Amino acid sequence: MPSPLTQFKRVLFGRPLASDRLEHERLNKKTALAVLSSDAISSVAYATEQTLLVLVVLGAVALNYIVPISAVIVGLLVLVALSYRQTIFAYPSGGGSYTVARDNLGTMPGLVAAAALLTDYTLTVSVSISSGIAAITSAYPALAHHAVAMCIAAVLVLMAVNLRGVRESGIAFSVPTYVFIVMMLLLIGVGLERFYQGTATVSAASSPAKPMTFPVGFAFTFLILRAFAEGCVAMTGTEAISNGVSAFKGPSPRNAAITLGWMAGILAVFFLGTSLLARHYGILPSPTETVLSQLGRQIFGPGLLYYSLQYATFAILVLAANTAFADFPRLASILSRDSFMPRQFAARGDRLAFSNGIIALALFAILLIWLFHGDTSALIPLYAIGVFVCFTLSQAGMVVHWLRSREPGWKWRAALNGVGACATALVSIVQVATKFTHGAWIVVLIIPLIILVLRRIHRHYEHFGREVAYNGQAPFMFLHHTVIVPVNGITKPTAGALVYATTISEDVRAVYVEVDPNTSAELKSRWSEWDIGVELVVLESPFRSILRPLVAYVDDLTARGEADLVTVVVPEIVPRSWFGHLLHNKTALFIRTAFLFRPNVVVTAVPYLIGRTARLRDLVTHDQDLEPGPGAGPQSQDAA
Amino acid sequence: MPSPLTQFKRVLFGRPLASDRLEHERLNKKTALAVLSSDAISSVAYATEQTLLVLVVLGAVALNYIVPISAVIVGLLVLVALSYRQTIFAYPSGGGSYTVARDNLGTMPGLVAAAALLTDYTLTVSVSISSGIAAITSAYPALAHHAVAMCIAAVLVLMAVNLRGVRESGIAFSVPTYVFIVMMLLLIGVGLERFYQGTATVSAASSPAKPMTFPVGFAFTFLILRAFAEGCVAMTGTEAISNGVSAFKGPSPRNAAITLGWMAGILAVFFLGTSLLARHYGILPSPTETVLSQLGRQIFGPGLLYYSLQYATFAILVLAANTAFADFPRLASILSRDSFMPRQFAARGDRLAFSNGIIALALFAILLIWLFHGDTSALIPLYAIGVFVCFTLSQAGMVVHWLRSREPGWKWRAALNGVGACATALVSIVQVATKFTHGAWIVVLIIPLIILVLRRIHRHYEHFGREVAYNGQAPFMFLHHTVIVPVNGITKPTAGALVYATTISEDVRAVYVEVDPNTSAELKSRWSEWDIGVELVVLESPFRSILRPLVAYVDDLTARGEADLVTVVVPEIVPRSWFGHLLHNKTALFIRTAFLFRPNVVVTAVPYLIGRTARLRDLVTHDQDLEPGPGAGPQSQDAA
Repeated sequence: MPSPLTQFKRVLFGRPLASDRLEHERLNKKTALAVLSSDAISSVAYATEQTLLVLVVLGAVALNYIVPISAVIVGLLVLVALSYRQTIFAYPSGGGSYTVARDNLGTMPGLVAAAALLTDYTLTVSVSISSGIAAITSAYPALAHHAVAMCIAAVLVLMAVNLRGVRESGIAFSVPTYVFIVMMLLLIGVGLERFYQGTATVSAASSPAKPMTFPVGFAFTFLILRAFAEGCVAMTGTEAISNGVSAFKGPSPRNAAITLGWMAGILAVFFLGTSLLARHYGILPSPTETVLSQLGRQIFGPGLLYYSLQYATFAILVLAANTAFADFPRLASILSRDSFMPRQFAARGDRLAFSNGIIALALFAILLIWLFHGDTSALIPLYAIGVFVCFTLSQAGMVVHWLRSREPGWKWRAALNGVGACATALVSIVQVATKFTHGAWIVVLIIPLIILVLRRIHRHYEHFGREVAYNGQAPFMFLHHTVIVPVNGITKPTAGALVYATTISEDVRAVYVEVDPNTSAELKSRWSEWDIGVELVVLESPFRSILRPLVAYVDDLTARGEADLVTVVVPEIVPRSWFGHLLHNKTALFIRTAFLFRPNVVVTAVPYLIGRTARLRDLVTHDQDLEPGPGAGPQSQDAA
Repeated sequence: MPSPLTQFKRVLFGRPLASDRLEHERLNKKTALAVLSSDAISSVAYATEQTLLVLVVLGAVALNYIVPISAVIVGLLVLVALSYRQTIFAYPSGGGSYTVARDNLGTMPGLVAAAALLTDYTLTVSVSISSGIAAITSAYPALAHHAVAMCIAAVLVLMAVNLRGVRESGIAFSVPTYVFIVMMLLLIGVGLERFYQGTATVSAASSPAKPMTFPVGFAFTFLILRAFAEGCVAMTGTEAISNGVSAFKGPSPRNAAITLGWMAGILAVFFLGTSLLARHYGILPSPTETVLSQLGRQIFGPGLLYYSLQYATFAILVLAANTAFADFPRLASILSRDSFMPRQFAARGDRLAFSNGIIALALFAILLIWLFHGDTSALIPLYAIGVFVCFTLSQAGMVVHWLRSREPGWKWRAALNGVGACATALVSIVQVATKFTHGAWIVVLIIPLIILVLRRIHRHYEHFGREVAYNGQAPFMFLHHTVIVPVNGITKPTAGALVYATTISEDVRAVYVEVDPNTSAELKSRWSEWDIGVELVVLESPFRSILRPLVAYVDDLTARGEADLVTVVVPEIVPRSWFGHLLHNKTALFIRTAFLFRPNVVVTAVPYLIGRTARLRDLVTHDQDLEPGPGAGPQSQDAA
């Protein structure tokens, strides 16, 4: 019974799920930590490296700054996590930056947050996947040539998994996160122990090959700030848990808050640990091997532990990309319900996932990967800006929330959120200023563009809603309804159309467009022989067009007031194969298009399926007299 | 009033012409000679060259064979021309090889001729245009890089001219043919005079740079035969006049016969003359300059006369391609009327030309030029085979014609056609045998393929004709007709659909597919408030699909025998812009597709045009009560 396409879809994405299974698709704390924290935790795979990439320009001495810069970022992380903890309890149904900013600050700040989030979710996928594939190509340099293809394949696999639904992705993805956590703890533990015991083999390349003149004053400050700005990518994903409160099993807010605490703690330890190790082991960024891979190779040696670390890094980065596959479609559906995005994003698909949002995200992410050749370092400067804009708007929104609600403790709550907002606002400015020429300008350009599109969509739906709103009562009235059936022979498809026409109106006229007067004489005589009580109107067509005389005839009918409403009933040949489609004129389609903008004209195609049993066809096949009646030649129907 | 596209079409192709202007579009003898003989006459631009290309392999002595080989071909030309003269009078309405072979030998030989002709017309365009552009690049070697692009541009210009209609192309194209005739007479006259007076500067390269060992026996004979086979391209186009008798002004057959005589005479003189000159002036084929260009440069010197010759050569070759633009669409329309090609090729367009045939020919010719990089020598081996197959079938058909008709003089007429048929049959075999590995195999493969496709098309139309043939009487009967209107809110588009539904049947049911039970309660209460006398059926949709419950409901209605015929009336939003199209679900289209293969179900879309005045809309806009009735929110309509 299901079509081959449906069967293929079922194998790939599973059977449809009923709406009442939605509740069961929620996550417990352990799974939620795996699914929702992976974005934040996985950023240790690239955050230290991006900071080092800037510091290395300043020369060997500057590399020492990696540890204090990381410490400042961890401080910021703790502040933001505390600030968002409050959001979780204030917005138990999911306090995304868009919702919080829109509720408290107004539509425009809400849209800024929405645009920034849409950009960031896309970048989360592109950056995480590129970085994950870099973990693989660090271990197997021979694969480096296929990096872009591997990235795209990974995004497509993620898309397919997410189209199956959120629960299964939770179960499938918990294991690798915990493996990564174990591997990182091992790396940091073993690495620091060996270093402090003096048994570590410190890299020979601990200072840049060409020491540069040490910049001073403004240039120095600027580069340190840029290193800080790049390091801030470690904080991306912090908001994922507060966005996804509703995905937690009950009591959702409490579970979410606990998970947020765990996440912040793990991230802080890993980021600081990685930066310390990089400094102690004198690791420098390299275009062919990630910093984490270099650390693993030096600390574990090229054995099982090293490869486990690389695979775990890859796996958690894929999970991080998966976070965006949960958040982007959810935000798109909220925006869609608020009429800021097309309706198609609002509905859950067969498997209870927001299918269109998932597909759109995959396509955008693939586009970015393709444009930037899957290079993490090229993508990173675009990232984090949107995240900090959202942090700021969300926390500013929370300040307004506390000022309005005046709940117990509103003063210190507002103060906490306010400090957080100021800090992240400052970082946002640093982000744009220091990375502008390195790609940040793209984001500065794209966010307003997205806002324009969202507003345009909203305007369209508002106009539409006002236009179609109906306040009248009982719209029914007498209409003179004339039905026109274009004919070009006495055939079964024509007979079927005439049966339908006489069913829907008393006033039926068969219309024949006369291209060649010789052939029309024959039809006229056959028609009068047939004697079915339907008048045959013959229209001349000196220019051989079928459509123009037909349109003119209908226009004339309505202009003279003979008909209030005209239906054109066209027999439509539905061939069995693509080959048949090439051999039949698409007359029904052309007639439909010709009348589309005509007032009070409706075109109805009565399908005639070649070679298939169809009852409407059978109705006209009960040959009542056995002697051959006025049949039609093989060519007569199709030219109609 | 006309759309921008229509206006553009008019500027490019002219205003539509009425059918009764067809008679006036016919050609007089002088114009017909220019239009229909150009194919044959223009072949002197490449026939001598292709023969030399083979002979040069045999060494210096063999080049002497060019003159006797050319003489044999001229003899063959005279024989074929005399033979075709008889066809003109026997088939005054246009005796193409297809018609003659089909009438006298049967369907299969007719199809062989048709397939061969379709191939050859396409090759006529490709070869003539490539060779014409070679005449230009011989004069301006710097343009050689752009040869393929120039070829394609030339084909497109020809296509546009032909879409304007045959008369104008006749007038536009007579002048260059006569210029070419004058230039060739000058070239041959001056060239031979100078040679016999001994004032000619004979080329230094009169013998091949590397004299080869002279092949003997079989190899020698084979190469001489191949040289002959290649030279036979001179005869391509000889059949054009007998195919196009109906394009002549009356008395058509007499005028056509006179024109055929002139054509054969001119071609014979030019071909023999060119071959003589090539021999006397010791011309060798070169990849960068045509033989005719080398002759012109040596005889005229690099002045005005030389450039006139090159331009005239180019012009007549374009005209030769134009012959195919008259013949291919005409043959396609004949095949289409015989149900061997799709219907779309049968009808004359706005300008009385067979538009679809013209466009198809242009596309195939461009494909060939592109595949063979616009290289005349690479295309030539494919050419001429089909022509000689047609010569043979056509003349064999004429033999049968005379044997059947027994008109006065039937014996010598049959004998003449018989000798011609035998000669061309022999040449056909030589063509395939000697050129097989040089590309002739492609034609040997393609002709049967075309025949297969033609037969498959014919079979489809025959089945179709038998299936739709209607012999019943008075198909009308009482049908219980139920109309279903899917609704998702009380909006103007819905009201419009309901107005239409109540007009076409007494039994109308509004159907609401309930995806979210919360929102449906509101609609139900609004509906009972509205009180329009149409029942609201609510269908549950546990899997959130709109279509599946709807299809199940309709299936159930017909299965229980409640309805003989069901019409689903869908309000269809027609947005004003592409942007709007993205924002509205294509629900009407999906519903149409879902019911396409259901028996006795017709889907009718009632268009609602956003922001346009449409009377059916106005019918439901006369708000009868001023207090706000049960209106719909902005989002309710679209999700239907």
